[in-house]
Amino acid sequence: MSRSVLVTGGLGFLGRHLVRRLAVDGDQVTVVDALTHGGSSEGLPAGVRVLVEDLRTCWALENLVAGASVVFHLAGQTSHPRSMASPSEDLAHNYEATLALAEAHRRAGATARIVFTSTRQVYGRAESSPVGVSHPTAPPDVNGVHKLAAEHLLAVYAQAHSVPSVRLRLSNVYGPGQRLDPELGFIGVFVRRALDRKSIQVYGDGSQKRDIAFVDDAVDAIVRAAAIDGVWNVGGFRHTVREVGDTLAALAHTTVETVPWPADRVAIELGDFAIDDAPFRAATGWTPGVGLREGLERTLGSFAPG
Amino acid sequence: MSRSVLVTGGLGFLGRHLVRRLAVDGDQVTVVDALTHGGSSEGLPAGVRVLVEDLRTCWALENLVAGASVVFHLAGQTSHPRSMASPSEDLAHNYEATLALAEAHRRAGATARIVFTSTRQVYGRAESSPVGVSHPTAPPDVNGVHKLAAEHLLAVYAQAHSVPSVRLRLSNVYGPGQRLDPELGFIGVFVRRALDRKSIQVYGDGSQKRDIAFVDDAVDAIVRAAAIDGVWNVGGFRHTVREVGDTLAALAHTTVETVPWPADRVAIELGDFAIDDAPFRAATGWTPGVGLREGLERTLGSFAPG
Repeated sequence: MSRSVLVTGGLGFLGRHLVRRLAVDGDQVTVVDALTHGGSSEGLPAGVRVLVEDLRTCWALENLVAGASVVFHLAGQTSHPRSMASPSEDLAHNYEATLALAEAHRRAGATARIVFTSTRQVYGRAESSPVGVSHPTAPPDVNGVHKLAAEHLLAVYAQAHSVPSVRLRLSNVYGPGQRLDPELGFIGVFVRRALDRKSIQVYGDGSQKRDIAFVDDAVDAIVRAAAIDGVWNVGGFRHTVREVGDTLAALAHTTVETVPWPADRVAIELGDFAIDDAPFRAATGWTPGVGLREGLERTLGSFAPG
Repeated sequence: MSRSVLVTGGLGFLGRHLVRRLAVDGDQVTVVDALTHGGSSEGLPAGVRVLVEDLRTCWALENLVAGASVVFHLAGQTSHPRSMASPSEDLAHNYEATLALAEAHRRAGATARIVFTSTRQVYGRAESSPVGVSHPTAPPDVNGVHKLAAEHLLAVYAQAHSVPSVRLRLSNVYGPGQRLDPELGFIGVFVRRALDRKSIQVYGDGSQKRDIAFVDDAVDAIVRAAAIDGVWNVGGFRHTVREVGDTLAALAHTTVETVPWPADRVAIELGDFAIDDAPFRAATGWTPGVGLREGLERTLGSFAPG
């Protein structure tokens, strides 16, 4: 039986992959995306309905939410440096958009669960390892402040207004078609250098651990989350930054060099970080399937000249 | 030597008491207040400069912050039920106003410490007792979401932009001239009933514990906090809701009756709550001086007909 689902931010990197998966599953997909950060409807399956709208001013939002079985809420601003430079913009896209969605759900008396993609950035520095969802939250940048506030808002709406939601604290997601903006994390930066056959620059010694998910695995986690409530960590495979660099360098026949930390990154860098996502795996049966080498190969391949 | 200090929200209940105290201490006080919630400049000492402005649009803010030794940031919306009914309004007054202040400080390259009055509401239900600042945060309503986000924002600005701040999680503050709006907490409601010689209605059995500070003590905590950084609990004297009702009833020659919890309050009621403010007392030498009976007597007296 076909579901009607709503995907906010469905034209972004993660959104497009999710939409394709949902279409394969047989869902009827509606996308709302403001195209604020240059998303694209290229390659979307036929039959996907796309509204280019800002959630804060989308008059159809109440009807869209009322007609959906699940709302995948991916819309947002994901650049941490940009959030520091333009905090009001980050507030608008990460928090006010979420408030608009939650309010539309409440007003419509809708029943759809909201699946919200948050970030492990809300924890700040790891005080213990691995980091579970009861670890203290201390967002180290404006993006983390607004993502955590959006989580908290959804928790309030779940409790007080019967707006069901699940909040996923994702770690690093990469894959074909990802944005290679230097502000969006180290994997995109590394891929850009590898594509350009330049040496891959690792800050410090590159020994910081990260949990990394290939986009198909992240999408599978998001789809499975539609059946549960609450807040969950979602990791992937654990690698050091150096391992990611070495694997990419081997695939692209280039080299790795270590460089000192730039001053503007030190202020918001989190150090070693290991996520505990065992509860999420147990609750949903999720397990990541695409390893680092295969994932990076497919990512590089997506950018190969025609 | 006289300091220049800035007080946002200086025309509200707590703000007016703080301004009077600062003037007595010899500070040169500038107040910025939007009068959104009906504050008043009545009774302010001579020489206090008052700007009726919204922080989000106050063009003078950079200059004001640059010229201040300390910024006491009390401006905000304090009604929890109102935050649930008008979340965007609460966002504007509690979060966006704080962002405007922090940004003005950063742009001005100012050095003043920001003393921010937050609330113990950010913790949600007490999972352990007494509640210290490392207790998990789980804001139970929109007001708590925005107050906590404002705390987090100030922590980010302290770390990344050298904007020093101290965040105080206050409990229940009462005293002469407080607003008796039923949305602003049980003490005001009780005082209103006592003034009207009506029976004081306690929800449930009234056995919930609260930390309660007379406004002069809360003001003294805020003034002392200007010398420290970080996040702190500030309590007062611990009483049950029933004890407050009984004391007021005795002072006003009326009675106490117990009534069932109204449905709309149950959703955001926190239950028993005991704050651990020992670290703040140790760091600042603060200790509350005005007990419940004296405090309530002075509060009632302030509303007595001329």
